[in-house]
Amino acid sequence: MNLKVIAFDADDTLWVNEPYFRHTEEQFYNLLGEFSSQQGLERELFKIEIENLSFYGYGIKGFVLSMIETALKVTNNKISTDVIGKIIELGKEMMNQPIELLDGVEEVLEALKDKYRLVVATKGDLLDQERKLKKSGISHYFHHIEIMSEKDDANYRKLIKHLDIHPNELLMVGNSLKSDILPVLNVGGHGVHVPYHITWAHEHIEDTIDDEKFKSVEGIREILGFL
Amino acid sequence: MNLKVIAFDADDTLWVNEPYFRHTEEQFYNLLGEFSSQQGLERELFKIEIENLSFYGYGIKGFVLSMIETALKVTNNKISTDVIGKIIELGKEMMNQPIELLDGVEEVLEALKDKYRLVVATKGDLLDQERKLKKSGISHYFHHIEIMSEKDDANYRKLIKHLDIHPNELLMVGNSLKSDILPVLNVGGHGVHVPYHITWAHEHIEDTIDDEKFKSVEGIREILGFL
Repeated sequence: MNLKVIAFDADDTLWVNEPYFRHTEEQFYNLLGEFSSQQGLERELFKIEIENLSFYGYGIKGFVLSMIETALKVTNNKISTDVIGKIIELGKEMMNQPIELLDGVEEVLEALKDKYRLVVATKGDLLDQERKLKKSGISHYFHHIEIMSEKDDANYRKLIKHLDIHPNELLMVGNSLKSDILPVLNVGGHGVHVPYHITWAHEHIEDTIDDEKFKSVEGIREILGFL
Repeated sequence: MNLKVIAFDADDTLWVNEPYFRHTEEQFYNLLGEFSSQQGLERELFKIEIENLSFYGYGIKGFVLSMIETALKVTNNKISTDVIGKIIELGKEMMNQPIELLDGVEEVLEALKDKYRLVVATKGDLLDQERKLKKSGISHYFHHIEIMSEKDDANYRKLIKHLDIHPNELLMVGNSLKSDILPVLNVGGHGVHVPYHITWAHEHIEDTIDDEKFKSVEGIREILGFL
């Protein structure tokens, strides 16, 4: 490998994210407990989130709007408006969450910062992601922050062009095979998968990946073993 | 002027935007007409939008969430949930709006495209702005699209660094003195103000600008006179 740039996914790769969504979902299920089972709510919320992706994209605001839409739908508009207000508050609480770095992250960034250009490549809401990066205290490690509306081949190509490197000089490190690994391998880069214990259903894939440019590790510190 | 890059604001500079927000606001006022005067609603919505800026930033999703919050507040939660559903629909309708280019825009881009690097510098929601640019049919004129969470000095400095130019090689063209002109002049660039007939209250400033790097024109075609 003749790497120049190491790109890190942010949510659930650098810091805790998905558990906050799960925690909010649980509060949402509690608010609607008298109308539907948790399983029914879960299914309906996920369905509405996916239907709304092309309108709202990823991020907390779209999540809140999808929760409100779900609350109206599963209750046939019989939900109390107090609950709507509480859902809006849940969103603001999420935005106010502190950032909890994952184990080993700072050690890895510190070890790599003088050998490679380090960047963040994340999808989601622009303001959500900027806010988290600012709170994280690790933004000084990164030469560039790329916030994409979708992590697809085209956007990774754009990033590689912007970084002015050859695709095989890029290594992407992330917890989602679907968003962080497959499209990067598609465009000719390297990928290291660092699984996180919780993954949003939308990020699940069934494939196993057999590619010489791909590695899977158990924790982020392991990447220091071959970089 | 030894310009290399001309940056264009998008909303109400390249295409119609603010009128769609105004139109949606009118529908919102109609939905709540029995609870409050239009003036009272207008004041409350604006107040809540500004309070929510640090949470939501700019864009349609935040606007929808602020309308819902306003509806709950001005009615003491007595608003019908049907209205909440309608507000969510208003947001999706905005996202589905076609893009209407402003008069002269294509002519200006066509005339300048071989003499300068043209870029878009816009603030707002990542997905909203990408969607509009895609629909606009003019994205091929631009070397780079910068979507900022806020148009402040720091973000313009970042853009100039990214473009790898001297600040005085940048000319920004836009309809907002506050967002498109003042911060650009602050960091050493040039600014041309092309006023639009409607401006959101948050973008109003009282100052008059006296700066040799600043010009005001009546329509975008006029910039061809001095470029």
